[in-house]
Formats: sequence, structure tokens, C-alpha cells
Amino acid sequence: MKFGLNFFPVFDPAERSAHAYFDDCLRLAELADRLGFEHVQTVEHYFSAYGGYCPDPVTLLAAVAARTTRVRVVTGAVIPAFTHPVKLAGKLAMLDNLSHGRLDVGFGRAFLPEEFAAFGIPMEQSRSRFAENVEACRRLWSEEEVVHRGEHTAFGPVTMLPRTVQRPHPPIFVAAATSADSCAAAGAAGHHLQVVPAVTTTEDLQVMLTAYHRARAEAGHAGAGRVQIKYTCYLDDDRETALAVGRHWENNYIEKMRAAVASWAAPGTGGRDYPGYAALLEKVRAYDFARALADNKVLAGTCDDVARQLGEIAEWFGPDLSVSLQFNPGALPLPAAERALRDFAEHVAPKLAHL
Amino acid sequence: MKFGLNFFPVFDPAERSAHAYFDDCLRLAELADRLGFEHVQTVEHYFSAYGGYCPDPVTLLAAVAARTTRVRVVTGAVIPAFTHPVKLAGKLAMLDNLSHGRLDVGFGRAFLPEEFAAFGIPMEQSRSRFAENVEACRRLWSEEEVVHRGEHTAFGPVTMLPRTVQRPHPPIFVAAATSADSCAAAGAAGHHLQVVPAVTTTEDLQVMLTAYHRARAEAGHAGAGRVQIKYTCYLDDDRETALAVGRHWENNYIEKMRAAVASWAAPGTGGRDYPGYAALLEKVRAYDFARALADNKVLAGTCDDVARQLGEIAEWFGPDLSVSLQFNPGALPLPAAERALRDFAEHVAPKLAHL
Repeated sequence: MKFGLNFFPVFDPAERSAHAYFDDCLRLAELADRLGFEHVQTVEHYFSAYGGYCPDPVTLLAAVAARTTRVRVVTGAVIPAFTHPVKLAGKLAMLDNLSHGRLDVGFGRAFLPEEFAAFGIPMEQSRSRFAENVEACRRLWSEEEVVHRGEHTAFGPVTMLPRTVQRPHPPIFVAAATSADSCAAAGAAGHHLQVVPAVTTTEDLQVMLTAYHRARAEAGHAGAGRVQIKYTCYLDDDRETALAVGRHWENNYIEKMRAAVASWAAPGTGGRDYPGYAALLEKVRAYDFARALADNKVLAGTCDDVARQLGEIAEWFGPDLSVSLQFNPGALPLPAAERALRDFAEHVAPKLAHL
Repeated sequence: MKFGLNFFPVFDPAERSAHAYFDDCLRLAELADRLGFEHVQTVEHYFSAYGGYCPDPVTLLAAVAARTTRVRVVTGAVIPAFTHPVKLAGKLAMLDNLSHGRLDVGFGRAFLPEEFAAFGIPMEQSRSRFAENVEACRRLWSEEEVVHRGEHTAFGPVTMLPRTVQRPHPPIFVAAATSADSCAAAGAAGHHLQVVPAVTTTEDLQVMLTAYHRARAEAGHAGAGRVQIKYTCYLDDDRETALAVGRHWENNYIEKMRAAVASWAAPGTGGRDYPGYAALLEKVRAYDFARALADNKVLAGTCDDVARQLGEIAEWFGPDLSVSLQFNPGALPLPAAERALRDFAEHVAPKLAHL
């Protein structure tokens, strides 16, 4: 089991300025770099308090790369439907160079109707644009004189610059929310996987991971494939304090998510590319912190509590996971996040070192 | 007269790796920050040894912002035709926050046919996309609930996040190559100006600057407007050494530019949006280092020589300039660039302090 940081900003300008948030992120990234965490990752969202402070993860990760020397920098995820593949491959290649080969590229399909609308992209094209643009990026990194004649973009022959440090290309992760088919496709393509346990049942996620590993093995790709999994983590010496803080910020997160996914209530949203997404509304409505904690959807408590939770997670999903931990959700003050990071490194991670 | 750094990478993978180049840039940016330079700027180009190592200036500048505390970070320039305005405004707003309000945004139209072809953008739409997208970015930064119904993109109502630190928006510069009309339009709009003296005659540039300042004043905008102007600078205690190094790397630059602009030889390239650009080919062919030096298109020699050149430049174009200096052209080794930067700060800039 490896551990990294996840930055998912959840507030609006009335609650917190972005410059203060980014300052905190860079301080936490430096600390994670020194404490031996594996990676730092962040998200791409727009307009709303649900992630909207980070419309371009590469921009924040370039700053992280400049302040660190060891941690991997991870897009979790970039949305290829919203950026031309020449631009996306180019800036990710710059980040791979700025970080001296520490980049992992997670690609996602996106799911918020307002984001697709702003870019003028029909959600019905989500799958085809994702597949086409991920492949275009892979070829721009690994080949020269690339000729691309896709359904949505066409270019070439071009040779992308700069060339990536990692050859033939940085590791490619596919972000999968709920679909075992998507996981199988990622495995068959030889990609790695990013999952978010909060949006599925434990059993469904097990099915997804099994489908991923099986498809990957059947396609003959070397290695088991890397899996990144995201949790928010609340640590305190006093269990009740950890739970109270966790309850507060998790409810804040759900409230912001509820506003961001509200437009899913319109019948037919997303079309056939998003089966089951309308259920997001019901999941959000039914959210309960105590239940989420009992189901290990959120990590909260003493160091022993969280170590026990991670042990169960390793039993459920296998120990070969890279766990992305959010230590600074909402407007949690920096000193509290720094303390949690240190406590995790000193008192939680060692308990899982055997995994 | 203020001074900054300009990074314009001019090499291909056989000559220099991007990670070594970016390392140098960050070292030079840190040094410039300590030595009191005003800004650091970089360019957007694709595919060729002529600038192609920097397909996304925001990515490099985010790293610069993370390593510095005082210098302004400047896009010189970003190309709004190649990035959706929601994405462009968003990542520039992130950079304004990461740098705590140190961002100057230069926007350019681009002029290389291969770049337009890769993005599937007709060069005939260059002016209209530029105007539309610069205005869209300005509104996304300064207004809320923006509704944009343009010729090329449409979106809204949306409120861009994060909000910029600089209100109502970061300073906007327009990059103008040869057109006095473009300069007048920038002035009338209240924007600032970026110029490249290497591609015009001194007299034409004077006409451009006069047109800019007159239009800006007539439109009633406060202040004279800021003007950034770019030169490459070669310094050595021994004049002949400076000139030999300068001749070598300037000829290398021209050779790379010749390859990048070769497709301008095709009749009709660029259409009516690019009057006079076909002459680029002839300018490149006729390039002569001694002539460029005599015309103050390149700065080279002892500290006294370069101070004298800058004095003449101040006489020609007015002293109220921000001069962007490239100290690490081509594959010039870092120690030589660092020495030149220190020498400039210690022995050249003070001689112009009265301006």
C-alpha cells in the first residue's frame, strides 16, 4: 500500500480565496515530499464550489513539481474532451519534464452537464472523445510524425515537443466511476486505474477491480496495473473530535456536490454514455456520515482507527493500492492538515508497511 | 526602463533536453527574482525547434511562480485561438492566484501555418478568434454570470473560478508584430502592448508605438499603457567574445526560424489577416548579424556597449519600456547565462537608472 495526497477544493470565494488554498497545497506538497508520500494529485472542475478552483490541474501540479523533488505528480483527472489533444499532450509533456519524469496522467470523462455545455461538447460524445483523445495523446508522446484522423479532431504529420522524459510515455490512468466495462476496457488497453470508492458499493468496486485485472492479464500486459483510490482522512488523538470535524467537512462536501449535480434531475441528462448517473442525486440525498464511516468510504478517528480501516480496505480491494488522501478538505486550517499529514506518516503508514 | 527575462527555447531534442532547459529557466528565474528584475516571460509555440519546447507558457510560469516571490510572470504570448476561453481564463486565473497577483497576460494571434493546421483553425479566422476570445477572457475574469454568444464559441451564464487576485482582471497585453492598426486597436481597448523589434524597422516600430499611445489617449484610458519589448542579450568583458557567441546563437535562431516559417512560401498563406507576413521569408534570408547589431536588434558586447545600445533604444522608443531580455538563447550553458544576468544587474541596469 502506497499513500499520496489528493487536493479537491470544495468552497466558493465567500468562504476561501484560491491564493490561500494554493499556498496551503504547496506547503502540504512539500511536507508530503519530505515525509515519503508517493504522490500529489488534483482534479479538473469548473464554475462551482465542487472542485471549481482547479480548472486546470497541470497548472497547480507544475507549481507542485517546482517545489518538490521526489513525489509523483498526478492528474486526477484531466478531461481530454475539454482540451485539444495537441495542447493537452504538450502541456503534460512539459510537466513530465519539469518534474523530471514524475508525472502520472489520469484521464477522466467528466460528468457535470454545465461543464460540457460551457465547452459546447455534447455529453453523448463523451465516450468517443475520451477514447479518441487519450489515444491521440499516447501517440503524440510515443511516436513521431503522428497523423491523426479522428472523428473529432484531425492533424499531422506532427512531432510533439517537448518529448516526454518517461518513455514511451508517462503512465496513463483511466478514471472510472461505476462501470466495470470501463475498467475492463482500461485493463485491456494496458492502462492503469483511478477509482473513487465513495460513489460505488464495496461489492461493485470489487467487481470493477476484478474486471480490470482480468482484462489486463488476458490482453497480456506486463504487471498487474497500478490502482489509485481516493479517501478523505480526518485524524485526531481524540476520536470524537476527529469524527466531529469529519462530519462537518463531509457534509459540506456533500452539500457542494448536491448543487453541482442538481442538473442531473433533468430527464435524459447524459444520455446512454452515463448509465446510472442520475442515481447520483439519490446517493447525495441519502448521504449519512456514520454510514459512510462504517462502510470505510471516509477515514476518520484516531491513528489506530484509520489504520484499521485501511487494513479492511486492503482486504477488500487487495493491498497493491496507491491511496490518495485528502487531508485539507473544505476550509480546514493548514496547521490541522499538516498535523494530520505528520501523524499519518508517523503512526498510520507504519502499521500498514507489511502490506 | 525596467528589465525582465524572456525564455524562448530554440533547439530540438538532438541538441538539448527539455528537462535540462526548464531546470536552467527556473534557476535563472530565481536569480532574476533576487536581483530585482521586473518579470519573467515565455512563449507559446509547437512542434518545431523554434519555440516548440513551450506549447503551454502557463505550465512553465506556474513553476516559475512557485520558485519566486517578487518577479511578475508574463505570457509572451498565449494564443487564444488555440484554447477555449473557459480553459484559458481558468488556468490564467489559477496562475494569478499561485503568483499572488503577479500575472501579466500577453495574448498573441500566432502566425505559423502548421500550428493553425494542427488545431484545425483557419488562419482567416485569426483576427476574429483573437478579438472574441480576449474579450471572453476579460469578461470571465471581471464579471459574474457571464453569457457569451460569439461567432466561434458560446457559453453561459457561468461564473469563472477561481476569481483573479488582480481586480477587475490581470493586466492584458496585446502582442503586435508589424501592424500599426493592431497597436491602435490595443490602445483604444485600453490594453498594454508587447512588441518584437527584430521583425520591424526602427521607423515602423516608432509608428506603431505612436499609434498605440495616441489611440489609448484618445479613448481616455488612464495612464500611458505599458510596453514590453524583447531583445536577446550577449555580455562579456571581452567584446569580441560577446560578438562571436552572439553571432553563433543568433544565426542558430534564424536557422530555426527559417525552417518554422518555410511554409509561408506557399502563395496565399495566411490570407488577408496577415498582410506582409510573406516578407518574413525574405527578412530571414537577408539576416546579417553585424547589421542586426548596428540596428540594435540584438544586444551584444561589453556592459558599456549594451548600456549604450539600450540608451539609444530609449531615445528611439521612449524610456518607459519594460525590456524582456533573453540571456539563455539556444544551448548556451547555464553558467554563462547566470554570469550575464549578474553582470547586467550590476553593470548595465544602473547605467540606465536615470531613465
